[in-house]
Amino acid sequence: MSLPNHFELLASDGHARTGKIATPHGVVRTPAFMPCATAGSIKGVHWRDVREAGVDIVLGNTYHLMLRPGAERIAALGGLQRFTGWNGPMLTDSGGFQVMSLSDLRKVGETAVTFRSHIDGARVELSPERSIEVQLLLGADIAMQMDECVRLPAERADIERAMALSLRWGERSLRAFETAPAGHMLFGIVQGGDVPELRQQSARGTVATGFHGYAIGGLAVGEPQAVMLAMIEKVALHLPTDRPRYLMGVGTPEDILEAVRRGVDMFDCVMPTRNGRHGVAFTRFGPINIRNSRHIDDPRPLDEESSWPPARSYSRAYLNHLVRAGETLGAMLLSEINIAYYQSLMSGIRDAISTRSFDAFYEQTRAGWARGDIPPR
Amino acid sequence: MSLPNHFELLASDGHARTGKIATPHGVVRTPAFMPCATAGSIKGVHWRDVREAGVDIVLGNTYHLMLRPGAERIAALGGLQRFTGWNGPMLTDSGGFQVMSLSDLRKVGETAVTFRSHIDGARVELSPERSIEVQLLLGADIAMQMDECVRLPAERADIERAMALSLRWGERSLRAFETAPAGHMLFGIVQGGDVPELRQQSARGTVATGFHGYAIGGLAVGEPQAVMLAMIEKVALHLPTDRPRYLMGVGTPEDILEAVRRGVDMFDCVMPTRNGRHGVAFTRFGPINIRNSRHIDDPRPLDEESSWPPARSYSRAYLNHLVRAGETLGAMLLSEINIAYYQSLMSGIRDAISTRSFDAFYEQTRAGWARGDIPPR
Repeated sequence: MSLPNHFELLASDGHARTGKIATPHGVVRTPAFMPCATAGSIKGVHWRDVREAGVDIVLGNTYHLMLRPGAERIAALGGLQRFTGWNGPMLTDSGGFQVMSLSDLRKVGETAVTFRSHIDGARVELSPERSIEVQLLLGADIAMQMDECVRLPAERADIERAMALSLRWGERSLRAFETAPAGHMLFGIVQGGDVPELRQQSARGTVATGFHGYAIGGLAVGEPQAVMLAMIEKVALHLPTDRPRYLMGVGTPEDILEAVRRGVDMFDCVMPTRNGRHGVAFTRFGPINIRNSRHIDDPRPLDEESSWPPARSYSRAYLNHLVRAGETLGAMLLSEINIAYYQSLMSGIRDAISTRSFDAFYEQTRAGWARGDIPPR
Repeated sequence: MSLPNHFELLASDGHARTGKIATPHGVVRTPAFMPCATAGSIKGVHWRDVREAGVDIVLGNTYHLMLRPGAERIAALGGLQRFTGWNGPMLTDSGGFQVMSLSDLRKVGETAVTFRSHIDGARVELSPERSIEVQLLLGADIAMQMDECVRLPAERADIERAMALSLRWGERSLRAFETAPAGHMLFGIVQGGDVPELRQQSARGTVATGFHGYAIGGLAVGEPQAVMLAMIEKVALHLPTDRPRYLMGVGTPEDILEAVRRGVDMFDCVMPTRNGRHGVAFTRFGPINIRNSRHIDDPRPLDEESSWPPARSYSRAYLNHLVRAGETLGAMLLSEINIAYYQSLMSGIRDAISTRSFDAFYEQTRAGWARGDIPPR
């Protein structure tokens, strides 16, 4: 039996698609980039600016939030959207990925993964059923099945074992999701590392289980971009065209443009805020390391044609100074500038697909990045 | 010969006064609180919010800015107001106080103080003449004479020596300021520690030199509040009523209210942002330590009647979580909430003096602080 479909495909151009997803907290325009509200905030960015930058949906991390402040506490406070004041659509991950990357003494079993909290060392168990329970307590509009993600490079046997486990966990996640309120969605996750046959097997199995949408997991975890793109192409062949497709944890603006070209609808990444905290601004002319001494006396803005006011109004000299002096405002400004750049990229992508001019947009955008930053003054 | 007067006294109520100072970058309503843009930003607060909170004037630190990014660099970029995008009135300190508190291997001589930069260890010399030069390069609307500030408690002989040196440095500062563009101001600084006779001697000497306005320095440096207030009363007797009076580095909301009552017009302090970064919110009901577990499940805002939206809209539970999780947004929100609270206090003070109801305002405000926070939920 097929689950209700909340995704509407509005136009496509080649493999690139644009559409919208109706969630209980509002509409998400796709292709969509979801900034990460990892521990309940988009690091260094006011929620009003997240909204203002054109963000439709944000990602909350089950692992962080279940440990602090706790899923039951957030539920009692009205769910994550109300707790944070974001009040818009929210996707939560299953927690599985962060258990692997952040916790100590983790042990993966058939039933659940057990680990020690990176905050207080407490022993915690996360099963597919508990992950879904937590995500529903958080109030996720879109929840993710629990899966096991393998860092690449890895042995084929390890990739296959994790892929098969993810298929079984997907079925359990779906059963646990049966009690979810109407309108909420559960996405399955295709695993299989960098092995085409395993990707195909995982895609077929996940689609056979049947979810509201499909994610491609286990990429951007150490493999070259070409391998990532080849895996996306392989998986996309097996995904239904009427359901949203989400490439997890990706990525650079270039990764996103390439993945959209191959039929992906949704993305998330910490890159805009993490790189912003490290002094890197994303622009039409590629990433700019504002700490570089070439900017120290430069009165020009990052990009005088940016749609985001701080990218037009603050001088490179001021941003350079703030970053070098370790002033929080530097990280704040670069983080919101990056969030806004990512959103302007997604908006340009959506418009281009709608008008069947994605190829021209693709070439023009890549030409801007290739041109590089303006010459030093 | 008397310097031009840019201060207009509009009303007084007891010793409390309200007025306005005309500066090249705009009008400052007094009593005024100046947030500290120490290294070129109000830590953790967007400039638009500084403006929105009702701030008329900010303070820039000569010591920090001369070391990084450098006064000549800032001058080439149009001055500190343009460099930061603040574009409003700005007062700079002389750098002397930070040399004493932040640098290594400092040596105070008659001509100048020499020290090693806390940033890169470079040997730097700061004389009254260089301090004024730097402040004019920064574009200060109000510059401060160079002085020597002694931390209390201190020996009378040390206090007297520093006070006398400050008088001589005041005269040199004034001569150096003769080339300043019209409309810019130089304030003298009264020293003398906690010794009434030395305070009197310093006030008379400083007024005899003749400045655009007068500061009371060397307080809030370790002495009890009663001593500070007694020194203010002593000094105020000797200051001309037609010139602005600035109490440097003060302080808590209570310090400010008490000092206004004794005739002070201007204040600066890092407290709103520093305490904000440490999880403390200033409110009508006194300071609130939002990290305290009493707030962990509390859906109520900090103060539902606050004029500052985030103090009304975010729950205590969310702020508690952000601070505990070390999320930058927590420090950002509490810093701007505190800046806004200080400004609402100053606005209330000005209105009360204008309507000759300062005593009632004073009692009511103190009653709110004494009442304390709302009971835990």
